[in-house]
Amino acid sequence: MTTKQVRVYAPASIANLGPGFDVFGLALDGIGDIVSLRRIKEPKISIRVLGEGHDKIPTEPQSNSAGAVLQHLVDSRGLDHGFEVEIRKGVPPGKGMGSSGASASAAAVAADRLLGLELDQNQLIELAARGEGAVSGAPHPDNVSASILGGFVVVNEEWEFVRFEPPRVGLVVAVPEIYIENKTMVARSLIPEKVPLRSAVRNIGYAAMMVAGVAQGDSRLFGRCIVDNLVEPHRASMIPHFWDVKEAALEAGAYGCTIAGGGPSLFAVGENIYQIGESMKQAFKDIECQLFYTHPSSRGARVI
Amino acid sequence: MTTKQVRVYAPASIANLGPGFDVFGLALDGIGDIVSLRRIKEPKISIRVLGEGHDKIPTEPQSNSAGAVLQHLVDSRGLDHGFEVEIRKGVPPGKGMGSSGASASAAAVAADRLLGLELDQNQLIELAARGEGAVSGAPHPDNVSASILGGFVVVNEEWEFVRFEPPRVGLVVAVPEIYIENKTMVARSLIPEKVPLRSAVRNIGYAAMMVAGVAQGDSRLFGRCIVDNLVEPHRASMIPHFWDVKEAALEAGAYGCTIAGGGPSLFAVGENIYQIGESMKQAFKDIECQLFYTHPSSRGARVI
Repeated sequence: MTTKQVRVYAPASIANLGPGFDVFGLALDGIGDIVSLRRIKEPKISIRVLGEGHDKIPTEPQSNSAGAVLQHLVDSRGLDHGFEVEIRKGVPPGKGMGSSGASASAAAVAADRLLGLELDQNQLIELAARGEGAVSGAPHPDNVSASILGGFVVVNEEWEFVRFEPPRVGLVVAVPEIYIENKTMVARSLIPEKVPLRSAVRNIGYAAMMVAGVAQGDSRLFGRCIVDNLVEPHRASMIPHFWDVKEAALEAGAYGCTIAGGGPSLFAVGENIYQIGESMKQAFKDIECQLFYTHPSSRGARVI
Repeated sequence: MTTKQVRVYAPASIANLGPGFDVFGLALDGIGDIVSLRRIKEPKISIRVLGEGHDKIPTEPQSNSAGAVLQHLVDSRGLDHGFEVEIRKGVPPGKGMGSSGASASAAAVAADRLLGLELDQNQLIELAARGEGAVSGAPHPDNVSASILGGFVVVNEEWEFVRFEPPRVGLVVAVPEIYIENKTMVARSLIPEKVPLRSAVRNIGYAAMMVAGVAQGDSRLFGRCIVDNLVEPHRASMIPHFWDVKEAALEAGAYGCTIAGGGPSLFAVGENIYQIGESMKQAFKDIECQLFYTHPSSRGARVI
């Protein structure tokens, strides 16, 4: 017997983490999306979005990351039924916190359970990445692997992944109230096609050292490796007061601070995240800024 | 009381390891240099070199990596005595196996012991890197940190390092009998100053994944991460038959194969290194090729 309705929570995530462009993903605690999935007789996918930034999220299946996951299942498996989907957003969309990845991950895990598919982790990640890719431009597994597996995840271009228990450290995300249309594509367009070898080598060093820090449970080393010479210098231009906010975080004691995913949020890690967050907010000056106080989560998507 | 004579062994090492240009170093078992150091009254450094490729190694202190280590100590500490140095080479010079780094590391550890300096690991690495830098053009800690600490070492641009127990896997180095004058500088000059972002991101992914493989004791993953999109395509041109040799290694079952350090040797890792080595030797065709069958060493420089 298969279930009639499933409800799944999937955490927000931060990709890149400074040096690991398209390589690292980190799940966040206490911020996430809930997808409730119900099978319906009619062969259509009907989507309702509630919560954080719901009005910015399309409800057509092909342009909604959860909808795209389900549409793919309908098409690839020739399903003769449809789905009723309710997405309760906890992750603000378009801010670099893996919003579409969280919804896609929750939808993938929910569909797997609802339909009794028994997909393995790789298949779940691939399915969720397909959904995220439908809305962000290119399927990529960094956010969804963190949302599905929890923890700190390393992925390579062949979509292999290794998951680690995440560092135990405070993390604050400062979300400026600016909205950038087609943000993921804009963020990618700011990066030049060629980069200095020297910058690449620096990022390689910090990325490798970040994994070393995570593997050895050294959260200070993890935080100090949030250094990015490749992408940050270019994307900083799309975020007002970027350098001031970063400097404020570091001066307040953050181990590291940079752009969260494709931005425009910044995240910082450290022990005294409340002080750090307040300093960041002040440095954003006239721009309103929402603060999320959290820490890395070791838990990924799960039925609730 | 300080000792009158000290003899120190330091292992060969491979830097870069594919994705981690200037970032990774790996100590090798059974191949190394022995430096015997004796204090003499006359304020001069007299060097004798024996063994593997000894005729290619200068004996003036300022252009010999062990000599440069000692010269630095004489200058910086105002020593009123000199040294008699015997270097017994096990590491072939100019082949990408960290020859100058091994001699410099052995000299640094020997001098530390002989003079009772009680340097810590960072100071030993810095001292040895200074010696290696004097002959290779720029001081860099990747080879010497592996030679001094043993194991698999990650270093970043701030000369911080993290050491891991190395992967348990076979390793073969194929050393072609070609000699390239000023090899380190030539090897660096082949790399363009700007590189495609896409290649940089690939290397970041493989470098991060390599650390993950090492940290988790997964030697197959370690080996499969020997992938380099940044440097290999350019340096391959200085090694005759490079692509054939690499292909031969992979076809024979190697997990990965690339240039050792600045070349011109190639190394491969796998289980059946004798088969792999023979295949590489054959693919070098008319070029004579010496094979070193070894494995990563967890032990670094030590008094013997």
